[in-house]
Amino acid sequence: MSATEITTSTIVTELLESDFAKALVQQIRVNDPYGTYRHWSDELLLKPFVVSRAQKREISVDGDVDPTTKGRILVFYRAIAARIEQQTGQLSQVVVDLSHEGFGWALIFSGRLLLVVRTLRDAQRFGFDSFEKLIAEGDKLANMGIEMATRYSDVCKL
Amino acid sequence: MSATEITTSTIVTELLESDFAKALVQQIRVNDPYGTYRHWSDELLLKPFVVSRAQKREISVDGDVDPTTKGRILVFYRAIAARIEQQTGQLSQVVVDLSHEGFGWALIFSGRLLLVVRTLRDAQRFGFDSFEKLIAEGDKLANMGIEMATRYSDVCKL
Repeated sequence: MSATEITTSTIVTELLESDFAKALVQQIRVNDPYGTYRHWSDELLLKPFVVSRAQKREISVDGDVDPTTKGRILVFYRAIAARIEQQTGQLSQVVVDLSHEGFGWALIFSGRLLLVVRTLRDAQRFGFDSFEKLIAEGDKLANMGIEMATRYSDVCKL
Repeated sequence: MSATEITTSTIVTELLESDFAKALVQQIRVNDPYGTYRHWSDELLLKPFVVSRAQKREISVDGDVDPTTKGRILVFYRAIAARIEQQTGQLSQVVVDLSHEGFGWALIFSGRLLLVVRTLRDAQRFGFDSFEKLIAEGDKLANMGIEMATRYSDVCKL
């Protein structure tokens, strides 16, 4: 094993310990009624969220979004919603609306307040350059949601 | 023509003159790129929104929502959004998210504020008992949205 590989692996282990990675893994495991992933490691579960630029180019954006990819998008936003709930105690809902062309919206809301609003495009190619980017994006959106939920808590309660 | 028929027809004519009916008709006509409905009367355009209880029972709720029905749901909420915009000047977005089983959400939002939130079920059977009920429901939801947009106008601007 080269020095680079050791370093990468250490970073991944640390990232897997982050709150967002744990929330993501938990969302996958609770949606696993047949226990398909019971013996899979957390790292293996999160691997499909990392899609390199070269891999993305190979995925066609014509036609429908693959159901597995759609499920992955839903899990990503549910994990963000779970993080917001843990921090603020506000229950929230996730809605992912995708057209057949891979365009659409990802929304997280609590009461009448939208905590997270994202437009999606080329959703067929959903994924992040690296584990770091995945966790960073999840944390960023969760923090934006937490700030909204704290600032307009009265609108959450409607 | 019997007296009842004359009365019914007068009521329908009055209802077609209502702001909500006009908004609904406009939404259908702007989404008609090939001019299919150019020679259709407004009444004929709105007729499919009226579905009797007996007709509903005949529509299966197993499987996907018919694309035409889905389009009708979208048009209904877009008309509500248009009414809210006319009254408040707040631009809004409509998201209809339906699962394959006819369950889902209809959302109208402006900025970070949800103006209208509706859960949908048995969406395969979307429709109203009568023209009166269609207009009444559209007006009710539009008024609720207008009240929200007025009360929390700062959240709309986010």
